[in-house]
This record gives sequence, C-alpha cells and structure tokens, in this order.
Amino acid sequence: MKLEDLGEGGFIRKIRERFKAAVVVPIGDDAAVFDIPSGHSLVFCSDLLAENSHFIRNLHPPDSIGYKSVAVNVSDVGAMGGTPLHFLISFAAPGDLDVAWVDSFFDGVAKACADFDISLIGGDSSSSDRIFLDVSMIGTVPSGKAVRRSGAKSGDSIYVTGQLGGSALGLECLKSRDLKNRAVRRHLYPEPRHKVGAALRERVHAMIDISDGLSTDLTHIVEESKVSARIYKDRLPGWPDAASNHILHGGEEYELIAVSSQDLAEVVMNVPLRRIGEIIDSGFENQVFLIDGPQESVLSPLGWQHF
Amino acid sequence: MKLEDLGEGGFIRKIRERFKAAVVVPIGDDAAVFDIPSGHSLVFCSDLLAENSHFIRNLHPPDSIGYKSVAVNVSDVGAMGGTPLHFLISFAAPGDLDVAWVDSFFDGVAKACADFDISLIGGDSSSSDRIFLDVSMIGTVPSGKAVRRSGAKSGDSIYVTGQLGGSALGLECLKSRDLKNRAVRRHLYPEPRHKVGAALRERVHAMIDISDGLSTDLTHIVEESKVSARIYKDRLPGWPDAASNHILHGGEEYELIAVSSQDLAEVVMNVPLRRIGEIIDSGFENQVFLIDGPQESVLSPLGWQHF
Repeated sequence: MKLEDLGEGGFIRKIRERFKAAVVVPIGDDAAVFDIPSGHSLVFCSDLLAENSHFIRNLHPPDSIGYKSVAVNVSDVGAMGGTPLHFLISFAAPGDLDVAWVDSFFDGVAKACADFDISLIGGDSSSSDRIFLDVSMIGTVPSGKAVRRSGAKSGDSIYVTGQLGGSALGLECLKSRDLKNRAVRRHLYPEPRHKVGAALRERVHAMIDISDGLSTDLTHIVEESKVSARIYKDRLPGWPDAASNHILHGGEEYELIAVSSQDLAEVVMNVPLRRIGEIIDSGFENQVFLIDGPQESVLSPLGWQHF
Repeated sequence: MKLEDLGEGGFIRKIRERFKAAVVVPIGDDAAVFDIPSGHSLVFCSDLLAENSHFIRNLHPPDSIGYKSVAVNVSDVGAMGGTPLHFLISFAAPGDLDVAWVDSFFDGVAKACADFDISLIGGDSSSSDRIFLDVSMIGTVPSGKAVRRSGAKSGDSIYVTGQLGGSALGLECLKSRDLKNRAVRRHLYPEPRHKVGAALRERVHAMIDISDGLSTDLTHIVEESKVSARIYKDRLPGWPDAASNHILHGGEEYELIAVSSQDLAEVVMNVPLRRIGEIIDSGFENQVFLIDGPQESVLSPLGWQHF
C-alpha cells in the first residue's frame, strides 16, 4: 500500500493508536499539552533528517532512520545535562512511498521511545517530493544546572566518552555493503550518552555532543569559551579499525566531550570517560592543537558542515 | 551570494546575531534552555512547510513563508487556549540558494516575533535538494485550562472568528498574478487568533483552528467529541468575493471554530465571532450537516488532505 492510499487521516490514526502517552493532551489535537515537575528548566532542541543529505532511501533501513532521528535529539538534551521527556515528529514524504517504509520508520521511533523512556506526543505530516523528517524534543534540567559550551577554563581537563570513529567507519562499510562490520550498527543506531551527561552536570564546566566530529565540536567549545585546547593523538579512544580521519573528524558519533577541573577518568553510567587533553589560554585565536608524538599542529575543524 | 558560500557556520552566526532572546540558553548551544511560570502546562506543536507542497519558490515571497511558518504554529497554540512563547526553526535548503532568499525569509520570521511577542531560540540547519522548513513551538496555558477538540456537547453553539474563504481566494489571485486583491495578503500573512483563543478558554467546550478548511476542521471536532453539527450556509461570514467552495473548504484560514454553551456572538480582542450553527446528537455517524435554505445535506470534509 502507498502512503497516498492510506491518506493523511489514516496515517495520523495509525500513529495515534500506536503511540499513547500519559500527558494532558497527546497526539490528535491542535497541539500537545504536558506538565513538568517544578524546579526545572525546559531543554528544547530539534534535528532534521533530509533524504539524500542525511540518508539514502535505498541504503539506510527505515527503522534506523526513525531510531536515529530521535536518538540525536536525546543526545542534544543530554549534552546540556538534561533528561529527555517528550518529542514531536514532522514527517513529509511522497504520496507514492510504501506504507511498509513508514511502518518500519515508526518501528525505529517506538524502539527509541522504549530505550530512552520518552514519548511521541504530536507533530505534523505533509506530502513532499523528498522525505524530510524533523524531530523536536523537550527535556528538563534542574533550574540553574544546564551545562553550556561556553564554560571551559584554562587548566581544565578534556574528556570524551566511549570510542570515536565508529560511525564514519560504519557509513563506509554500509556504502560498500560490508554489513557484518559492527561499526555499521554503530552508524545506524547511535547510543546517545544522555545519562552520562545528566550524571556529570554538576561536575563539568562545558559539554557538547559529537555530532559533527571531534575537531569541529571541540572547536565549538573553544570558540564559545574563548580558550584553546590541546589534545593528544595517542590518548584518543579509537573505534577498532577506525582510521585517524574517522577518529578526528567523523561525525554522528554522539559521544560527549566534557570539560572539567575534576578527575573524570572513570566509568559513568557504564560508559568509560577518557582524558584526551587540556584547555589552555587562547593566545591569538581559539584553536585546537593536536599533539602527535613530538609534533604539534593546529587541528582544523574538518568535520561535517552543511551547505 | 549563495548559501554554500556563507557556509553553515556563517548561516548560524547570522541568525544568532539577529535573534537574541532573554532565555537561560538562547541560539548557539546543543539545545535552548528556558523557564516557564509556575502553575502552567506546556503547549507543544510543530508545522512544516515543504517546497512545492506548501509554497512555490517563484510564487511566494520568502518573507511570507517565514512569517507564515511561525504564524501557523501561533494559531495552533491559540487553538488550545494557550499563549505562544518560544520556537525553533529547522531549515533545510539547497547550497545554491541565494542568501537574499534566506535573509528575506528571516525578515518574515523577525516580523512574526515582533507581532506575536515570541522568540526564536534555536533549531537546526541542513543542505537538501528542496527547501524544507519546520517550526516547533512551545506555549503555556494555565494548568487544567487547555481546550481540546473533544469537549463539544449537544445543544452547544458553534462560532467562527473573522471571515472565511480569503486565503483560498488569495492563493487563486496569487497564481493568476492578481496581486492587488487584498485576499493575497490574507493568504501570505495569516493573522492567527491566539489572543481570542486565550480569552475564550474558560468559556468554550471545544476549539480548533481552521488550517484544513471549515468542513474538515469542524469534522475533526464532531469526530473527537462524538457528536454531529448543523451549520447554516447563510450565516457563514464569507470573505468579500470568496466562492462558496472557498468558504466551506478553503484551508489556511487560521480563524478559530469555538463551541460553547454560552452566547459568544460578540467582538473579542477586536475580532468578531459569529454563531454559524449548533452541535446536535450524533445519530449513526459524526457528521456535519449544511442547511442551505430549505435544503439540508451532509457537508463532507473536502478541505486539504496531504498524501
């Protein structure tokens, strides 16, 4: 069956029956309505996925697109030290799209709801020439406890969670149809570190999730904090078989960069943190320096940039 | 200059410098952070605009697309009886799009921020084959005061704000380049009735905004409320020169349908409300009946349906 045979009404009924949330007003009205506990601020973000930019319809399984569209927002909420709560999906697709694709996409969304203990409570739908998906998410953070990119101070240590380079390697494997490599799963079903972010929020000065690559996202921290950074190549926790380019610049990792004056080289919420370098005074520019044995070079932000 | 020459970093800097909001964390971090007053629930909605489905690049002025993308969400918040507060924009466009288009689009967004006293506090950006815009908005409503579609009761009166049919007429005029007709402005720069919705929230049983057409949106109310409705053709407040088809089925009006046991035939927040019919028992199906002189017929929902 095609989406145009199901119709917009049928599409909405299908989603509404599948996703029931215990909120004041769930899916099926002009807007969703919900409450949050007192003493909290709201964390609000969106991430879009555009066909041919973020995914290829004949390459990426639809359930992975559904899962990832939610997971990347969970990651953003976590990078603020917040806890994800509810989200909306704006879903645009051609009328001749097979409903099986749509069902599989929402299988991934449902899996993400279960994995991250969050609810789909609304959104919008439209026909369009290409598939476009935008998830907007609300989370909460105790008042005054949100962690920004701008708090890094000279002398702080820089940590990363997990391993780097797996997602970029996984995309390469996916494109070459080497589907047995477990990096493919890493690319398709990212594991956001929101629980680590929430656990660390009182111990860190700055935090960001690695969506555009270590080089680009660490550059965001040094620019926002008006400092520089020095990281050590031999300390970077690389994914097995990931190339140096994957580790330094690969996007869609959804690991966290955390900057702290404390020693965080420990396992937090079952995820190892590794100290990869330190924040230094800015000098003339806010830059990231890479130490590779005896050599020191400027690490340019070569990660993903749209447009 | 093209968007790809500006680059994603330049794009974000430009938006960030233009839209400064007094919130805990505004544009420029992993997520925005803000507070709401106690005693309120959150109202959360999104509306997407896809090129060639919602607008034609060479027909619709970019500032009208920016304005409308925000206004339609303001309308949704208002239809719940809420007050709009903050919003995000997810913006996807081809790299060869002229930056002048982007600037004009955000002129419209800025005008909407001023008109509706709300703030752009974040979003996402991406390259894509087509322009795709999704606005997600948060508003507030006093706890327990949100107005749903499902509260209409037999014997209630049905009211609409303003005039109907102007937007559909305006689109026809736009397509035929009859730009002097003031219905064109109605189509391009809709006036959401959020202040009316907020003012009425303690006096109504059900409310919806007319985004898909009177026939379709009133059908939503009768279906959700498990009732039927009878409306009188000669009482429908038509836009000057709007055809019957425009009035009954034209979408993108952003007027409100309000259902109440009270007499609301008055001017609220400078907007006239008109009684157009009444809620009746459902009978076998939840239907809308149209009374046209001596004739009564079922008014099928022939408004806009995607897919």
